[in-house]
Amino acid sequence: MSLLVVGTVAFDAIETPFGKTDKILGGAATYISLAASYFTKNINLVSVVGEDFPAANIEMLQKHNVNTDGLQVLKGQKTFFWAGKYHNDMNTRDTITTELNVLETFNPVVPEAYQDCEFLMLGNLMPKVQQQVLSQLKSRPKLIVLDTMNFWMDIAMPELMETLKQIDVLTINDSEARQLSGEYSLVKAAQKILAMGPKYLIIKKGEHGALLFNKEQVFFAPALPLEDVFDPTGAGDSFAGGFIGYIAATKDISFENMKRAIIFGSATASFCVEKFGTENLVGLTQEEVDARVQEFVDLVQFDIALV
Amino acid sequence: MSLLVVGTVAFDAIETPFGKTDKILGGAATYISLAASYFTKNINLVSVVGEDFPAANIEMLQKHNVNTDGLQVLKGQKTFFWAGKYHNDMNTRDTITTELNVLETFNPVVPEAYQDCEFLMLGNLMPKVQQQVLSQLKSRPKLIVLDTMNFWMDIAMPELMETLKQIDVLTINDSEARQLSGEYSLVKAAQKILAMGPKYLIIKKGEHGALLFNKEQVFFAPALPLEDVFDPTGAGDSFAGGFIGYIAATKDISFENMKRAIIFGSATASFCVEKFGTENLVGLTQEEVDARVQEFVDLVQFDIALV
Repeated sequence: MSLLVVGTVAFDAIETPFGKTDKILGGAATYISLAASYFTKNINLVSVVGEDFPAANIEMLQKHNVNTDGLQVLKGQKTFFWAGKYHNDMNTRDTITTELNVLETFNPVVPEAYQDCEFLMLGNLMPKVQQQVLSQLKSRPKLIVLDTMNFWMDIAMPELMETLKQIDVLTINDSEARQLSGEYSLVKAAQKILAMGPKYLIIKKGEHGALLFNKEQVFFAPALPLEDVFDPTGAGDSFAGGFIGYIAATKDISFENMKRAIIFGSATASFCVEKFGTENLVGLTQEEVDARVQEFVDLVQFDIALV
Repeated sequence: MSLLVVGTVAFDAIETPFGKTDKILGGAATYISLAASYFTKNINLVSVVGEDFPAANIEMLQKHNVNTDGLQVLKGQKTFFWAGKYHNDMNTRDTITTELNVLETFNPVVPEAYQDCEFLMLGNLMPKVQQQVLSQLKSRPKLIVLDTMNFWMDIAMPELMETLKQIDVLTINDSEARQLSGEYSLVKAAQKILAMGPKYLIIKKGEHGALLFNKEQVFFAPALPLEDVFDPTGAGDSFAGGFIGYIAATKDISFENMKRAIIFGSATASFCVEKFGTENLVGLTQEEVDARVQEFVDLVQFDIALV
């Protein structure tokens, strides 16, 4: 049984107040897979790159227990490329360049060996492509998590709404939750979105943490207060990867276990933002991850004795 | 032994997206005293109002165990009045009117019967006035908590810096912490501010919760996700009142107990914002407060089992 990760593998060029990069490894599925690799060993990747994509990157993913048989390498084509610049508050950014390249015609193919998929993480992609993956699976995974963004709400809302009916957990940020629901209050937004199909909703609030809702319960996890956020790129995907990786490792999809998964996801995301791109997600030790999770426990734990 | 609360008692006229009020009861010391009254019984108030201040308001405070012997009622003068309008996001507001009235010449007098002060909450006031209170106390309280705002950083920074050397806990919001320290990162801001004098710093982030720092530790408490925030006026003061009220009730000024106090403060603030002004802070039952605190426990508690 395995974790299937579907999403972009890309090149990013990033500028923050702390510096800038040339084309470096990026993409939602890259961050998700690397983050999940600290919790579970059997990760299958479905994505697409061009022939400009270095073999060393593929080998690095494989060293993190990521099976890349489902990573299409298209001859004569170029890898998806995004360039962006963050503002001083690090919460907002401008897109400088988006070159879809191989993504323009991406036709995901789930290899036969991936059909044992028990947990599925659909990273941010065109909703139609996310549905193509769902339709190729012969049996329904135990848990389907989907990430999406405001862009698809703007241009592909009907397809997105159709996809939402087929999934278990939706992860979006606070402004996307407001856009999708038409409600400013996140509590009201959550109930409207849960009525669209997902059984669970995770609202990511960046430096302000994350909320987990089902129809009856709510859980909140903070982000770790860091001395500096160096580069927020991939934070949401690292969060999702840590979340689904922990779920896949524990095979427990209860609300109680999702709370723990959110803490592990938050811990993984906190590593991601400390350096540029995926740099800090490569080669973490189990001790480093455990120590970071303990920081979260220390950050929020208290004993109440009612007076 | 008692809790001494110093701050404004005022009239507010408030407009939010949900409605508007005529002149209603407001003021930092009002919110602080009412909030504290759910935890501790021996509350002494030092403040000033004009002869336009209704006796019914004073009686209401007294019913909440607030001793008003230190509340000066100035003949022929008018009570401090503030009018403001909140924007749609409820996080920002415009001041429409500020009439200082009795505050212009406020000379705080600590009655002899208040000298048993064990815990002191200095609500937001001119730093010079806060110092006048400190100088009247014959023995130093066990814990001195001070609230201030950006306005005093703009026009009375030397006096504020002097006052910060004399206190134990400073409560400010995130933008004020950034202004006071010159650091964007709240972690760096906290360390700079703690070097200015306070042993503890509470950074209030409104709907995003609150952080408690000392030089070695950090604790985070969320705000309760509410269906609607009706009126944010007084939220920070209710938070401070719940915090100091719980500390006064338990007489424990350890970091561990301050964590609990922050949860009680957050719970009290969550009541405050559900209605206009002080309306929801009058006549709460112990059961309601306890149930609200339990909501906070449920919101953030998790058990981590490292995989």
